[in-house]
Amino acid sequence: MTRTIITGGLVITASDELRADVLIEDGRVVAMATAGSQQWTADRVIDASRKYVIPGGVDAHTHMELPFGGTFASDTFETGTRAAAWGGTTTIVDFAVQTPGHSLRQGLDTWYAKADGKCAIDYAFHMIVSDVNEHSLKEMDGLVEEGVSSFKLFMAYPGVFYSDDGQILRAMQRASGNGGLIMMHAENGIAIDVLVEQALARGETDPRHHGEVRKVLLEAEATHRAIQLARVAGSPLYVVHVSAEEAVAELAAARDKGLPVFGETCPQYLFLSTDNLEEPDFQGAKYVCSTPLRPREHQAALWRGLRTNDLQVVSTDHCPFCFRGQKELGRGDFSKIPNGLPGVENRMDLLHQAVLDGHITRRRWIEIACATPARMFGLYPQKGTIAPGSDADIVLYDPHAEQVISAETHHMNVDYSAYEGRRITGRVDTVLSRGELVIDRREYTGHAGHGAFIPRSTCQYL
Amino acid sequence: MTRTIITGGLVITASDELRADVLIEDGRVVAMATAGSQQWTADRVIDASRKYVIPGGVDAHTHMELPFGGTFASDTFETGTRAAAWGGTTTIVDFAVQTPGHSLRQGLDTWYAKADGKCAIDYAFHMIVSDVNEHSLKEMDGLVEEGVSSFKLFMAYPGVFYSDDGQILRAMQRASGNGGLIMMHAENGIAIDVLVEQALARGETDPRHHGEVRKVLLEAEATHRAIQLARVAGSPLYVVHVSAEEAVAELAAARDKGLPVFGETCPQYLFLSTDNLEEPDFQGAKYVCSTPLRPREHQAALWRGLRTNDLQVVSTDHCPFCFRGQKELGRGDFSKIPNGLPGVENRMDLLHQAVLDGHITRRRWIEIACATPARMFGLYPQKGTIAPGSDADIVLYDPHAEQVISAETHHMNVDYSAYEGRRITGRVDTVLSRGELVIDRREYTGHAGHGAFIPRSTCQYL
Amino acid sequence: MTRTIITGGLVITASDELRADVLIEDGRVVAMATAGSQQWTADRVIDASRKYVIPGGVDAHTHMELPFGGTFASDTFETGTRAAAWGGTTTIVDFAVQTPGHSLRQGLDTWYAKADGKCAIDYAFHMIVSDVNEHSLKEMDGLVEEGVSSFKLFMAYPGVFYSDDGQILRAMQRASGNGGLIMMHAENGIAIDVLVEQALARGETDPRHHGEVRKVLLEAEATHRAIQLARVAGSPLYVVHVSAEEAVAELAAARDKGLPVFGETCPQYLFLSTDNLEEPDFQGAKYVCSTPLRPREHQAALWRGLRTNDLQVVSTDHCPFCFRGQKELGRGDFSKIPNGLPGVENRMDLLHQAVLDGHITRRRWIEIACATPARMFGLYPQKGTIAPGSDADIVLYDPHAEQVISAETHHMNVDYSAYEGRRITGRVDTVLSRGELVIDRREYTGHAGHGAFIPRSTCQYL
Amino acid sequence: MTRTIITGGLVITASDELRADVLIEDGRVVAMATAGSQQWTADRVIDASRKYVIPGGVDAHTHMELPFGGTFASDTFETGTRAAAWGGTTTIVDFAVQTPGHSLRQGLDTWYAKADGKCAIDYAFHMIVSDVNEHSLKEMDGLVEEGVSSFKLFMAYPGVFYSDDGQILRAMQRASGNGGLIMMHAENGIAIDVLVEQALARGETDPRHHGEVRKVLLEAEATHRAIQLARVAGSPLYVVHVSAEEAVAELAAARDKGLPVFGETCPQYLFLSTDNLEEPDFQGAKYVCSTPLRPREHQAALWRGLRTNDLQVVSTDHCPFCFRGQKELGRGDFSKIPNGLPGVENRMDLLHQAVLDGHITRRRWIEIACATPARMFGLYPQKGTIAPGSDADIVLYDPHAEQVISAETHHMNVDYSAYEGRRITGRVDTVLSRGELVIDRREYTGHAGHGAFIPRSTCQYL
Repeated sequence: MTRTIITGGLVITASDELRADVLIEDGRVVAMATAGSQQWTADRVIDASRKYVIPGGVDAHTHMELPFGGTFASDTFETGTRAAAWGGTTTIVDFAVQTPGHSLRQGLDTWYAKADGKCAIDYAFHMIVSDVNEHSLKEMDGLVEEGVSSFKLFMAYPGVFYSDDGQILRAMQRASGNGGLIMMHAENGIAIDVLVEQALARGETDPRHHGEVRKVLLEAEATHRAIQLARVAGSPLYVVHVSAEEAVAELAAARDKGLPVFGETCPQYLFLSTDNLEEPDFQGAKYVCSTPLRPREHQAALWRGLRTNDLQVVSTDHCPFCFRGQKELGRGDFSKIPNGLPGVENRMDLLHQAVLDGHITRRRWIEIACATPARMFGLYPQKGTIAPGSDADIVLYDPHAEQVISAETHHMNVDYSAYEGRRITGRVDTVLSRGELVIDRREYTGHAGHGAFIPRSTCQYL
Repeated sequence: MTRTIITGGLVITASDELRADVLIEDGRVVAMATAGSQQWTADRVIDASRKYVIPGGVDAHTHMELPFGGTFASDTFETGTRAAAWGGTTTIVDFAVQTPGHSLRQGLDTWYAKADGKCAIDYAFHMIVSDVNEHSLKEMDGLVEEGVSSFKLFMAYPGVFYSDDGQILRAMQRASGNGGLIMMHAENGIAIDVLVEQALARGETDPRHHGEVRKVLLEAEATHRAIQLARVAGSPLYVVHVSAEEAVAELAAARDKGLPVFGETCPQYLFLSTDNLEEPDFQGAKYVCSTPLRPREHQAALWRGLRTNDLQVVSTDHCPFCFRGQKELGRGDFSKIPNGLPGVENRMDLLHQAVLDGHITRRRWIEIACATPARMFGLYPQKGTIAPGSDADIVLYDPHAEQVISAETHHMNVDYSAYEGRRITGRVDTVLSRGELVIDRREYTGHAGHGAFIPRSTCQYL
Repeated sequence: MTRTIITGGLVITASDELRADVLIEDGRVVAMATAGSQQWTADRVIDASRKYVIPGGVDAHTHMELPFGGTFASDTFETGTRAAAWGGTTTIVDFAVQTPGHSLRQGLDTWYAKADGKCAIDYAFHMIVSDVNEHSLKEMDGLVEEGVSSFKLFMAYPGVFYSDDGQILRAMQRASGNGGLIMMHAENGIAIDVLVEQALARGETDPRHHGEVRKVLLEAEATHRAIQLARVAGSPLYVVHVSAEEAVAELAAARDKGLPVFGETCPQYLFLSTDNLEEPDFQGAKYVCSTPLRPREHQAALWRGLRTNDLQVVSTDHCPFCFRGQKELGRGDFSKIPNGLPGVENRMDLLHQAVLDGHITRRRWIEIACATPARMFGLYPQKGTIAPGSDADIVLYDPHAEQVISAETHHMNVDYSAYEGRRITGRVDTVLSRGELVIDRREYTGHAGHGAFIPRSTCQYL
Repeated sequence: MTRTIITGGLVITASDELRADVLIEDGRVVAMATAGSQQWTADRVIDASRKYVIPGGVDAHTHMELPFGGTFASDTFETGTRAAAWGGTTTIVDFAVQTPGHSLRQGLDTWYAKADGKCAIDYAFHMIVSDVNEHSLKEMDGLVEEGVSSFKLFMAYPGVFYSDDGQILRAMQRASGNGGLIMMHAENGIAIDVLVEQALARGETDPRHHGEVRKVLLEAEATHRAIQLARVAGSPLYVVHVSAEEAVAELAAARDKGLPVFGETCPQYLFLSTDNLEEPDFQGAKYVCSTPLRPREHQAALWRGLRTNDLQVVSTDHCPFCFRGQKELGRGDFSKIPNGLPGVENRMDLLHQAVLDGHITRRRWIEIACATPARMFGLYPQKGTIAPGSDADIVLYDPHAEQVISAETHHMNVDYSAYEGRRITGRVDTVLSRGELVIDRREYTGHAGHGAFIPRSTCQYL
């Protein structure tokens, strides 16, 4: 039983900033005290002077090893969670996938197996429901019991993940009964597929056309529709990867009515834009994801939504595909470019930069990246904060260090960075997962298998 | 060549109220003059003292002989247009129906044949597109040329008339190119069918459950979605039979943005409510239509929408089914009740009553019942107004007469009235269609076959 | 008794466009007939081939000879109404002014005397109420009886025309009872005067600072406040010279609720912008008026408001001051520049240009410039339309002629044009006022004293 | 130096609920630890089993000894702060008042003197600015430095506290520069006074007319105006005692735009209504306050606003006047009834009841009653939370105890209770102020003079 003290740092949580020492026993925080006030002894004393002491990041949206478009996301649970740790994230919630025609159970077991023994940090699962039917609806209850308490549905990707409005309504009704939280990919995929076909027929095959056909209005439409269906079902709703100002407006309008509707955005929508999709020589393919990157003007609305709490969470939707061999599958046909971007390693840093840029406060940084995702998905206060009783998932963050993001130095298993060359002030120094050092002063000391599956309670953000 | 003068009445159009004599030659209005100022001679002089001289009504939404749910609407073009004339309506725009798997042409020809030689008043057609595909999309262009310039799509009735969002988008794009106007039945039928199935499974089989499952939120949702799809397509949109306050709000929001979005409501939504659907002994079945009747509170929003011009047209959606033998098909299963209400004879009177009740002005009465439907569907100024050059479709309306609406006295071929026993002040006295007397001082003098098919231009309301 | 026929033109009213001959007797339209259909004889036949035959313009907002800032508006009723005729306007509604401490009666009589025997066209009066008190409130009733049925209040200009919210409320309550219409100059003048003082203290004395201190938010605020006070009083409201997008939004929101709230804008806000205010060498002073010109982006919102009928009227707020000797009073202190622009002659042409530019339709041109101002202020159908019974105030408008607006050619008594050098397609050819030729094929044939005072009924637009 | 431990309770803060022991030294919290995990010794051990351990309440709006309408609020700083302690509130922010014609300094010094040596708990001051002028504007900077960092202005009460829009704008500009927070009484007092005069003239003198003349629309109007002025000034804004749904809507709209606009409501608006104002025999006078109580339907909007964070704070606006001798001053003239209600003792209990009633969560209870008022007014984390470094202002709250609110048992110096007879579950058991027991197991152990003036930093909620 190790006893660790972190001394002299500025502890920042979603609610407080205080100079405090943190005492850790058995992987948990047991006490916090005014700096220097207690004569604690310990096996290990970590000096946090000039550092922030923050909860480890909770990334509520990753896709390790996701099969998509005939290939697989290039990060395994091993490489992806290691990269997450490097980036100050100590919990991921990944997506298990139901294959149409098969049960949720089968899909979930497959993902348990993929992750088991591989992870450097703790992990949990959402369940993608690709085939809403009587059987899978019943299975949802059991999954909630088992700690897989959120279910993602798609209004896009007809023929793959797509659920129609009747299926969505049924799933929402079920979730309303069992406490599950419905997560929605809100794009009108039926209409988009018409536009895709027409664009390709016109010879518009470049990556930038991906952004043009997946129209802002069709994201806003689907967001509105999902909200109305949730109202009919009497269920809460969490909209993933919100990218368009008009979609934020739909969420804001619903929230003004007091509806339990939540929105997530991602660093790529906050820091990148259609300018990237238009990069020449097929480089735009690196930025192909859905919802797509939007014109630069939308960024202000997303930042505002994060400040007004019309958006509550920043996750990464980490789903990396190498440019070579993977993104290249879509040369000559943007619709064949695997959808997804790497980012699990960059989130905490990019958001710290947003603090320096004046978009958000330090406490809001921790709230959107740690505390709220934990509350939203039933992990709080075990994860997402630093308080007596919490898991000792703690990051010492150096707010003064400078770094340049690059594929050459990152730890994700992907041959490019979406943020190549971007200068950031702030860097992860040390990371503890349940009291164990995973990153020790910029050295990786973790190991595959340390990370454990964390069963989740139901949504705590209602 | 008959020459007719109408003297001494108060001529009311959408824009003016004036004491004027009206001179008719060859079925058309040729001149209007200050009352008594001109020494016109004529074959026939009609004294309009103490009467209103108004344009004949234009009912832009009727379904004569419509096949639905294994039966047919009980008014033929003969009985239905005769009843329309009795009610002061001199033009109907009925709906030709495409049968899935067949062409628009076949559907339209079938309806031409049904109406040919049968009508007491003039008529035109919209086209219901039940099967949007490459062929039917191309046919739309030809129909616009032919004078069938509006196309109705359904977001409800999966498996019957339903189009998915991709089909809707394609049809809107086509209409955007050829000047056609898309008319939309805006209800989320996919979600509604889930609720129908669940209600029936719970044993909720009475007519009132029809109103409960077809939720306000699902009308509003579909209205919003149709608007967004129209924005993507760059096309105007006409939403039929708007019944819910929340749907009006969607139209109002779109119109505030300057979008070419239009809404129609019907007398049943203005004068009836879920109270009627709840009438005992299956009497509620008489009031089953879709969109359904709403709680009484919605009426104020509809009247307000008519005043603010967020709703532009009042049509009847006349689609009568006899209680005995037809409505009764749905005993024990509300979903089997044929959807539709009689009303083509009652519209002008009910709206005149609304003038007296203070809901609308006299000019607005004519605007929503005559002028705007004519403009909306390319019939103006031939129909919908009284002006030099217009068809002499003219009604002498007695604003002081009193009547009680009843199935015993109405002329529609249906065994009940939706407004049975309702007292109305105001009554049609005399009706001219292209200068011919169809109703002469409360006597029917028309004949089947007088009414002609009127090819329409494209929308004139943009 | 002259009998005149206008033949062969396209008659355009707010509601119709038709090829019709117009018969005029005793200064009134007595009949209209399908072109060529009637064998009318006449003393005078005016050939309107290739011309529009439109109602004479109704300019509901002019300030002839207005005392302001120690000087007088440079157009007298004689010069101003003559210029109006040249521009196709046949009725003006000018503003009589109450002097604080004096009665409405005294003010009105002064203005009667100014106009009497001077006008080339008909005129009416609104009353500016500068001193709301028990006596002036009672006088309002009498003025309504007398045909002066609208009352303008100012939320700006403290110490001059300003009324506080209590005075406004009382005046609205009175108008609610007597049928008067309250017109509002909606700017928060108390706050603006603080900003004026601060700007001058900072040495910001140029004309462009006039636009900067009179902030969009303070126009929107006052508009909102006026609407709320009208709701409390239960009275309708007409907001003059709306210039800011945010003010239009307040009107639109009120109108969506069904409130009887109306808005006027002016050509200067539609065609000019802060770019003009920034013209060097004090030239910006030519464009100083209140509400001020706004950044160019606001124009789109104003056009949209005119299309959506959230704005109903375009008047000129014609209030000319010569650059030399008058505008120059404000060199070195923008707050001393007399507020006002010339425009009574340009309105019909500029709005016709807007038709060609696609902002509005031809009928809407007539509606916002003729019919609605007449209805709004109780002049319809005597003024604002062409129909049997209307005054024969008729303009033959050549839609193909080209002109360049210039002070060198205009007829207003002012040494500059706000639209100098602007090319316009369309020009007034001939103008009749009550059947008399005032402009005959671009020659002035009118005379001072032809124009008569027209008592007005109460608002007909409710 | 006392060392105290509070053991075995459920510590509830705005962000967390945890089983933790709390260690107090020198009046401050120095450490928190998982319950039972540390072998702390202490002079005093307080057993919190089955109790909540919560931060002492922060009531940001009280008026002890306020002169109003010729009398004084009946609670002195001594009686009022003692009652506050009984109710679980350990900090009040009261209002020092500037007398017109005098300086802020004089007003503040007067209030320092009133409170000095009298208070049972800590206190701070806002400053009411009744006379905005060059001198008082300059004084504001000094007050911010001194720890009086918020300034209240009135849009109501002309001739007493009223500031015009120009004064408001100037004060906001000043606050924008010095970090002060403007607090606004948002009612259009100029218009209201007209309605008061008219009501009295009609003989409407009863207390319920107080509610009728102070119209919802005039609260909403002033709220909107204050927001617009704050936007012009670039300053944040805190609106006090929001009572009307329409005012909440104005705040929500502003906050959706990301504006730093905040709203406070009070228990009387959440729990009482115009029903109380209508109590017979002049009993309604007990409930006369401004903004007034509203119809019951508004309560839902206020609760929703508290949930959506469109309202951030619940304060009491504690301003008690005895029924006998004080409220009675207004018999026969509601405008002479002193405005104000007692409540400082009831707030924490009423809001705990709201937790049980399902309106808010436990953490939100602490947030709106402790943490946010502290942050809003620069007292955090000294006040408003329980964390290492915070003042040991701690309440042991028994969530199971039952009580009936009554003037017979309350400790406020007023002869009636606004909540007489209301049953509440939950009761304050023990209160510490800076580590000292003020209430010890329902016994008062405090003393006048323990409470200290707390200088405040600027707003921490931005």
